Amino acid sequence: MNLHLNNILKDIKKDGVQAYLLTQFTNIEYISGYKPTSFAFCILKENPIIYVSGMDMEIANRDSTIEVKQYESYDLMIKELKEEGIKNLAIEPTLPYSTYARFKDDFEISDKSYVDKQRMIKTPSEIEKITKATEIAQKSFLQLDILNNNGTEREVAFNLVRYMIDNGASKESFETIVTSGANSSLPHAIPEAKKLERPILIDWGAIFKGYCSDNTRTIVYAESQQEIWDIVAEAHDKAIKSVKVGMKCCEVDKVARDIIAEYGYGDNYIHSTGHSLGLNIHETPGFSARDETVIEKGMVITVEPGIYLEGKFGVRLEDTVIISKKANVIGDLPLNIE
Amino acid sequence: MNLHLNNILKDIKKDGVQAYLLTQFTNIEYISGYKPTSFAFCILKENPIIYVSGMDMEIANRDSTIEVKQYESYDLMIKELKEEGIKNLAIEPTLPYSTYARFKDDFEISDKSYVDKQRMIKTPSEIEKITKATEIAQKSFLQLDILNNNGTEREVAFNLVRYMIDNGASKESFETIVTSGANSSLPHAIPEAKKLERPILIDWGAIFKGYCSDNTRTIVYAESQQEIWDIVAEAHDKAIKSVKVGMKCCEVDKVARDIIAEYGYGDNYIHSTGHSLGLNIHETPGFSARDETVIEKGMVITVEPGIYLEGKFGVRLEDTVIISKKANVIGDLPLNIE
Repeated sequence: MNLHLNNILKDIKKDGVQAYLLTQFTNIEYISGYKPTSFAFCILKENPIIYVSGMDMEIANRDSTIEVKQYESYDLMIKELKEEGIKNLAIEPTLPYSTYARFKDDFEISDKSYVDKQRMIKTPSEIEKITKATEIAQKSFLQLDILNNNGTEREVAFNLVRYMIDNGASKESFETIVTSGANSSLPHAIPEAKKLERPILIDWGAIFKGYCSDNTRTIVYAESQQEIWDIVAEAHDKAIKSVKVGMKCCEVDKVARDIIAEYGYGDNYIHSTGHSLGLNIHETPGFSARDETVIEKGMVITVEPGIYLEGKFGVRLEDTVIISKKANVIGDLPLNIE
Repeated sequence: MNLHLNNILKDIKKDGVQAYLLTQFTNIEYISGYKPTSFAFCILKENPIIYVSGMDMEIANRDSTIEVKQYESYDLMIKELKEEGIKNLAIEPTLPYSTYARFKDDFEISDKSYVDKQRMIKTPSEIEKITKATEIAQKSFLQLDILNNNGTEREVAFNLVRYMIDNGASKESFETIVTSGANSSLPHAIPEAKKLERPILIDWGAIFKGYCSDNTRTIVYAESQQEIWDIVAEAHDKAIKSVKVGMKCCEVDKVARDIIAEYGYGDNYIHSTGHSLGLNIHETPGFSARDETVIEKGMVITVEPGIYLEGKFGVRLEDTVIISKKANVIGDLPLNIE
């Protein structure tokens, strides 16, 4: 039995939970090695099992370290669970209401984050994959020759993805953001078919063996842009330097937020300072004002302060850090691209 | 007030529902024109409102036809709803359990598919966009020169996406499937870094102005593959010809399934015959054995029978049809690529 599964079964037992239902694809992949393509119900219990869509039986048999069985109906699945004497069932907080509704009359339901909790601490092998994904993404970024690029936002985004795939990524880890000029004040801007203006903000990442990377660089020109860039860089650097095992996540957010506020841009920092990543691009915990999670060795979290001046421009600078005693930035791409 | 919103407010009123909470991005886009990038709570009621993440305020103000307000907390949102006298709240069936749990103690909750139901029937403008997406995707496919291609599965998939974007798509409508040889027996195969073998199965689509297309072609070589191809083509053609307004969706599935079963491959047809598409690549209703929805004018549904011989190969042929009195195939890409 694999280590992840073993740890989770221990947590379940401690809580007196008899069975834990997983439907999130990356949670099932994390536990079993099999990533559903259609739907699946993974039930962690004394004898773990995955009910798999008929479409997926071939890959589930090939990839899963847990017993798989073809899904037939909710009724049959519920009947089989009840026959094993299962009365209480834990679910993921993300389970769709309509799926919850199928189980709620037959079981005592509680929502639990056992797998998310386990996924917070990355194994050396997971860290290796995230590191490789980051290296591929950063190398590809440098191939863009961004300072001499005459293409459109969309073309640059497309080339970046092509380079990442050429360099060994399976795909981008989220929709690549290449935004420029006034659009850069939108944190989640969609690349447009317009020539690059200035400043240029690029937020991008690769997936390598299922694991994500995430970086942002902003290239500024005018002096007014450089001033903002310097503040964001200070927030970025000092937030990273502040990280220590045992601190709370919200304290790191506060470091970045206070610096930006001191310069008078508090209202222009409109998102959190960072999020964990792994099999998903957004995982818990995050460096946000509300996250009281204690920082532990093995967490992998982004640090990405930004200042957004509506209608003018935005600056964001992002690196991903691995927590050992302190925070170590992954990769060696300079903040300042020139 | 827009037509979609108006129709939904009528449905809500008829059921005695006071407010309907939407969190799915495409549902919010459908109603308001604003597509969230982070999270949002859209509440349809006498005075509809969208609570928007701070990150999205700039685009929400720009794009939404409904009043927007910055989200602050669940508590505040719930307080404001209660102050309006709202006691019963409808939710989408897909709402995550943990969000449902935030509302369940303050409101009488029911899950409703008002927006999904409205989205089943496409307007002429929506049909135009789906048609354009399909035309872009099919034109791009022909540019591949697939029969003379010496690339890997992954390269072909990549080129296809590049052509679609060059031809005006904003992106692919789902992860392009280019699979060949024995892998083609996996309905949702992931393109690999291996040279194309035979047969070649390609399942692809474009997004144009938010709307998806979906097609599949399989190119076979050996006579044993041609036999299977002919059966699938017969199921494809006859299922499409059978469609009539007033029939049930499951009856169309039965037409395709019966043909494949008659030839002895019933157990190798491991998925449904089709799904609706629009702003999402998978919408309701679908041509599946369990879907009793009555077919209406304005629906847009795929027809995609397949036969999968584990460890050997698979064949799937897919077109998307618009329902008027009968089903009209979108685009003019021949089934037989040569």
